[in-house]
Parts: sequence; C-alpha cells; structure tokens
Amino acid sequence: MKLKEWGEENFIDFLKSQFSSPSQEIGIGDDCAVLPYKDGYQLITTDAMVEDIHFIKDHISPENLGFKIVAANVSDIAAMGGKPEHAFLTLALPKTLDTLWLKNFVKGIKIACERFEINLLGGDTVGSKKSIFINLALIGSARNIKLRNAAKVDDVIFVTSFLGDSLAGLQLLKIASAMRFPQLVEAHATPEVYPEQGQWLASKTDVHAMMDISDGLDSDLKKLLKASNCGASINLEKLPISNSLKKACRMMDWNPIEMAVTGGEDYCLLGTASANEFSRLAKEFERKFASQVHPIGQVTRQGLEYVENGQHQNIKVKTFNHF
Amino acid sequence: MKLKEWGEENFIDFLKSQFSSPSQEIGIGDDCAVLPYKDGYQLITTDAMVEDIHFIKDHISPENLGFKIVAANVSDIAAMGGKPEHAFLTLALPKTLDTLWLKNFVKGIKIACERFEINLLGGDTVGSKKSIFINLALIGSARNIKLRNAAKVDDVIFVTSFLGDSLAGLQLLKIASAMRFPQLVEAHATPEVYPEQGQWLASKTDVHAMMDISDGLDSDLKKLLKASNCGASINLEKLPISNSLKKACRMMDWNPIEMAVTGGEDYCLLGTASANEFSRLAKEFERKFASQVHPIGQVTRQGLEYVENGQHQNIKVKTFNHF
Repeated sequence: MKLKEWGEENFIDFLKSQFSSPSQEIGIGDDCAVLPYKDGYQLITTDAMVEDIHFIKDHISPENLGFKIVAANVSDIAAMGGKPEHAFLTLALPKTLDTLWLKNFVKGIKIACERFEINLLGGDTVGSKKSIFINLALIGSARNIKLRNAAKVDDVIFVTSFLGDSLAGLQLLKIASAMRFPQLVEAHATPEVYPEQGQWLASKTDVHAMMDISDGLDSDLKKLLKASNCGASINLEKLPISNSLKKACRMMDWNPIEMAVTGGEDYCLLGTASANEFSRLAKEFERKFASQVHPIGQVTRQGLEYVENGQHQNIKVKTFNHF
Repeated sequence: MKLKEWGEENFIDFLKSQFSSPSQEIGIGDDCAVLPYKDGYQLITTDAMVEDIHFIKDHISPENLGFKIVAANVSDIAAMGGKPEHAFLTLALPKTLDTLWLKNFVKGIKIACERFEINLLGGDTVGSKKSIFINLALIGSARNIKLRNAAKVDDVIFVTSFLGDSLAGLQLLKIASAMRFPQLVEAHATPEVYPEQGQWLASKTDVHAMMDISDGLDSDLKKLLKASNCGASINLEKLPISNSLKKACRMMDWNPIEMAVTGGEDYCLLGTASANEFSRLAKEFERKFASQVHPIGQVTRQGLEYVENGQHQNIKVKTFNHF
C-alpha cells in the first residue's frame, strides 16, 4: 500500500499507538507536547515546510517565508496559552541555492524572532538534492494551558480573526492578481498570530478547549470535536469575513463562505467557552486587545452541522491531506 | 553566489552572527543548546537526514534508518554529558512511499526510543515531492555538562571507541561486499552511542572539553580546537582501529589510518582531560564500562599535527561539507 492510500490520519493514529505518553498531559495529538516545568508547563512544537508542497519560491519572498515558518510555530504555542521562547531551525538546502535568497530568508526568521522575543539557539544545516526543507522546533512556557479535548456541550465556539483571507491571498498570488488585494496577500505571506490573546484566554476558567486554525476551520474543528468527543453547529452567517475577502470573492466569483470554512493557514485561535460567560469574556477581550473574538456556533452532542439563518447547509469541503 | 561556494562553515558563522545568545551557556555552535533547568541543565539538539544525501534507501533497512536518526541525536546529548528524554519527529514523505517501509522505519525509531528510554512526544508529518526528509529534535537533561571550548594545552585527547568502522561499513554496502564484514556494516547501520559514558565523563572535573564524532575525527577535532582556541598533536599509531577494519583495509587496499581520521558517523565521544589524571580516569572508566577510553594525542598551543612514531605525517583529508 502507498502512503496516499493509507492517509495522514491513519498514519498519525499509527504513530500514537506506537508511542504511548507517560502521562495524560503530554504527548502526540495536540498543538504542542506539554511537559511539567517550574510552576507551570513547557510547550514544544515543530512545524515543517517543504518547497513545492507548502510554498513555491516564485510566490513568496524569502523574508516572508522565514517570517511565516516562525509564525506558524508561534501559533501552535499560542493555541495552548503559551509564550514562545527558544527556536531550533533545521534547513536542508540544495547546493545551487542562491545565497542572497538564503540571507533574506534568515532575515525573515530574525524579524519574527525579534517580534515574538524568541532566541534562535540551534538547529542543523544539511544538503538536499533538489527541494528546500525547513523545520522549526519551538519551545515555549505557560502558566495555564488549554487542550483540544475540553470542549463541553452548549459551549460557544469562537475564533479570534477573519477566516479565509490566507487562502484567498494564495489563490491571488497563483493567478498573479495579488496587487489589488494587498491585505489578503499579507494574510497569506506574513500571518498575524495571537500569543498574548492565547495566554489571556488560557488564564480564563470559562474558556474550555483551544487550538489554532492551520489546516482550515472545518478540518481543525473536527480535530477539536474528536478530541472532546462532541459535535458542533456552526452559524455560517456569523463567520467573520473581511471586506477584502468579500470584494475579492465578488471579482473572482468565489464563494466567501467556502473560503472561510475550508481555507488553511489562518493561524487564528479557535476555542470554546461557557455560553453564560461568553459575552462578558468577549467584552473583556475587546477592551484588552482592541480586536474582536467572534462567536461562530455552539458545541453539540455529536456531528458537525453548518446552518445559515436556521437552514441546514451543505458545504463543499476539500479536506486537506498532506499525502 | 551559490551555497556551495559560500560553504557550510560560512553559513553557520553567518547564522551565529545574526542570532546572539542571551548568555554564554546557551546557543549555536556546540552539540546541543543548553538552558538552565531545575538544579542542572536542559539540552536540546536536532539532527536531519535527507534521502540520497545521508542515506540511500537501497543501502540501509528502514528499521536501521529509524534507529540511526535517534542514535545520532542521542550522541549529541551524550557529547555534553546528558541523558536523552523527549523526542519530536518531523517527516516529509512522498505520497508514493510504501507503508511497509514506513512502518518498519517507525519500528526502528521505537526500538531506539526503548533502548535509550526516550518518549516520542510529537512532531509533524508533511508531504514531499520526491525525497524523504527526516528531522529529529531531542531534549535531554544533565546535572553536569562539558562544552567544546574548554580544552587546555597539554590535555590528553581521547576517544571512546574504534574509529573509521562506520565509513568502512558504508563503502562496503556501496560495493555490495557487506556480507564479509558484518561488524563494520553494523557500526554504520546501528551505531553504538555513549550516553552513560558521557554522563560519567561530564561528572569528572579532570575532563575538560567534550563533543561527539559525527563528521569524522579530523573535522570534529578542528571544531573543538577552534572553540577552545588551541591546537593538537595526534599520534596516528594510537588511533583505535578495529581488527575488522584492518582486515577490510587489507582486502580492499584502503588506508586504515585515513579511514580512522576522516570517517564520519562514528558517534563516539571525543574529549580532553588533564594529562596528570588521565591514566587514573581511564582505569576507572574501564572498570565501570568494561570498555576502553583511548588516548590519541595531546592538546597543543596551535595547529593540528599528525605524527606517526615521532615523524610528522601528511594525511589526505577530504573535509566533509554538507553543501
């Protein structure tokens, strides 16, 4: 059997079955691994990007690519309520690679490390026949953490930013129509991530489950629901969709709802919180961060249902599978 | 300029210049990064292996490859005196990869994790167009550590195993003559590593500098000497060369000294210790581990000199450069 037939989920389940964690708090399957540390936790995550799979050199500048690999990892730390601290960079590079490209890539890494107060402490640099492989391992710390498995029935489901902008930015880059929508391209190339918001949300007992959206709302929400053993009803009319995305969708004849539900690399936080406390929590969040936390649905007993103004909707979902 | 012209050392020096470490104890340039932790240290290392650069699928079984990626990282932790603890595996895999190969690879990882009492706690699995890319990040802890930069003039230089066996094993595999020298092939495919010995050596004040041999004695010793700002005189007649290697060299018309000086992936420890205390230390080591620590030369003020029975020798050194 080939890997593409086996599929990513089966492979990860196989890995989980082979490597049991020594305790419930740590191990494979959440955004980060968690270790007890001082009077809190140490969080460890790794994220890889491969040329022609995750990025095409013609479509992203080396600075932005460097920034993005750091941001993607910071988002995983943020998703559990942590503060990023130490990074380890592995690069496999073809020997014909232009050194100017490489220097600009390192510049992007440096800009991100300065922005998020991360020390790059090590890594490995090796050769590669053809493609560029990038892996970043990021260590952070947290006083309070939130896992994926703590959603409760009737919780409000929320996200911390617009959805779908990054996918739209990528599509626009591919068809060389990027100039007209700089905000969407920026959302794709230098995504916002939310470590302070994650730490604040993790400190609230009324917030139950949390993760980040990297593969797309539909795909990631299903992981949260599976871990929490419950379902969800998502109100499509409540999905936060940016004006730029609406405009681009009108021009390109795209469906903004589909973009918001399936688009990957938004890197915002996805969480659940007590229904009774949500509006108080949302007001506090808005005061503190001058940005909104958007309620998009409710946790249910089982299944994932999309509803628009009370009507059940079928969404065309292209599930992202790495293989 | 292309990366191959810039070279690995210049690139790593560039990285170091871009990312300054917050303290002397931690950062780029030793076998591991070091963080203060409890009443000792946390060590972090990452090691990558790329198909057709570090391994050829036809020349190593997937179990052995899995074992080896773990062992290579354990060796880095051992080199600073640490105990390996938590691993994070990143795999970039082509979708046409056979799942049996993958399962056997995971089996090799598992065997190594059990052998070295490591918990595999996470990682990332992504697609790749063509080549397999493997990265392992390994976290360990240490009560005492030894760095590369602590060698002192007149120290004895030592290694903890035979040199050159792994290179010989690789060469034999390439020419399909592996059957006659199983020990050499084993040294290449499932290398011995020395975490207990590393911890013990790190606890001794008379041991000064330590690292592991992964690129070859000549290449790695030069790194130690550069970090310690001193030189060395190596006595070629003292290099520990296995009987298997001697036999293979006779048969293949190889030079055993050149194999021992330049061969990579030996994964033994390379260190320096007080000349006055070395023989006592070596006896204690032998009693404790039922294996020898081999003195191979002395630390000098500058330069790296190879001497055979008092005569200066020129060694043909092919320096390994990843690019």
